[in-house]
Amino acid sequence: MNIVIIGAGNVGYHLAIALQAKGYNLVQVYSRSQATLAPLIAALPNIATTTQLSQLATADVYLIAVKDDSIETVANQIIVPPNSIVAHTSGTVLVDVLQKHTHYGIFYPLQTMRQNQTVDWQQVPFCIHANTLQTQQILFGIAQTLSPKVYLLNDHQRQMLHLTAVMVNNFANHLFVMAHQILSNNQLPFDLLKPLILETAQKVQTQTPESVQTGPAVRHDTQTIERHLQLLQTYPDSYTQLYQLFTKMIVNY
Amino acid sequence: MNIVIIGAGNVGYHLAIALQAKGYNLVQVYSRSQATLAPLIAALPNIATTTQLSQLATADVYLIAVKDDSIETVANQIIVPPNSIVAHTSGTVLVDVLQKHTHYGIFYPLQTMRQNQTVDWQQVPFCIHANTLQTQQILFGIAQTLSPKVYLLNDHQRQMLHLTAVMVNNFANHLFVMAHQILSNNQLPFDLLKPLILETAQKVQTQTPESVQTGPAVRHDTQTIERHLQLLQTYPDSYTQLYQLFTKMIVNY
Repeated sequence: MNIVIIGAGNVGYHLAIALQAKGYNLVQVYSRSQATLAPLIAALPNIATTTQLSQLATADVYLIAVKDDSIETVANQIIVPPNSIVAHTSGTVLVDVLQKHTHYGIFYPLQTMRQNQTVDWQQVPFCIHANTLQTQQILFGIAQTLSPKVYLLNDHQRQMLHLTAVMVNNFANHLFVMAHQILSNNQLPFDLLKPLILETAQKVQTQTPESVQTGPAVRHDTQTIERHLQLLQTYPDSYTQLYQLFTKMIVNY
Repeated sequence: MNIVIIGAGNVGYHLAIALQAKGYNLVQVYSRSQATLAPLIAALPNIATTTQLSQLATADVYLIAVKDDSIETVANQIIVPPNSIVAHTSGTVLVDVLQKHTHYGIFYPLQTMRQNQTVDWQQVPFCIHANTLQTQQILFGIAQTLSPKVYLLNDHQRQMLHLTAVMVNNFANHLFVMAHQILSNNQLPFDLLKPLILETAQKVQTQTPESVQTGPAVRHDTQTIERHLQLLQTYPDSYTQLYQLFTKMIVNY
């Protein structure tokens, strides 16, 4: 199967390397800028690249891995063979932005990726959706060669999943940032929290998060909650707001 | 060294088993109720127990592992030999509540413990503090036989650490609860998020949380943020408030 990847950012970069490694014929990678292509060329020296959308190679599948707000523009600009599939890799953009094409769908890997880090594809869930049965089967098949965790999700499900991914990744990480800052202010190393952070994530791998909730809020330990709010008084108001909001939500749950 | 543990809840239970396994002479475990002692007696059939504080055995070290708001009462009630050490295991209670005694301190293991789960003590940081050098050395030494991660923290540092532990454990877990609920409402399995949750925790083991922060807020991706807020409209207001608060904090950071 011949594949063209459009976009050489984090997702395009890692998909290109992974698909090539799995034996797909990666005929071309597009990026608007030569600079963005450089790391990929360093990783795959024989890869064909272009910076012109008008010069896309012929392929069976075109994977659009550009920024969310460029997907629609790119999709409308490209001209592909009538039997080819066009899919994008975004968690939030609706599938209909690809409707100019005959065969289109979603090929969304749910993981934060950075170019300087390897991706453990076995652990990456793929979310697939398509406008025809055959397109869905083909996209599903490609995903399955990369990961055992492949799911069929409609637009709304994928958007809700992306929202929850922001919560458990971005928001949880910001809690770590806040904790890091508080510890630093008190001459304490972040190392102190690392085992607890890992254990918190490990627990919900085999148990529901509801069943492992602990802490002063769930115990209705008003004394500790009041003490914590006092300790936060020298920090920005948002710290107190966040503490109170979480406490209220955990108590109400 | 002879040790008495006062309290057979989660911390007392696990400390008793671990200290016994490390060769300490665990002369007695106290709990207010026989029922609380039952799991420990099942785990350590030869253990001496009592439900009467007035019948505490003689020991070198008394570890108070009762609920936070009972520590002061228990500490004032017990009578121990003048050379013995009294320490409590709480993350928030001040060390001074033990000042009736000659040698006293803190022996705080930073981890959430549950009786039905084994504790990997090698990964548990211990926070030690004491009113005399020798007491500190003895408590430090006991902790060190259980874990390589032993720290000396004063009251304020320990309280701040406990506060951050609530953030990265209890609050992060509540994010998982919210995500679980949203996924369930959309007929999606929580399994989808498990790899991301684990990866989020693993990343900050070797990198600072600041350096791995990703997501729409850090990218100032207003379009995605607005879409997420729309998706949350059918959920309680607190979901929206939390999303907005985190977004504001990440943007401002």
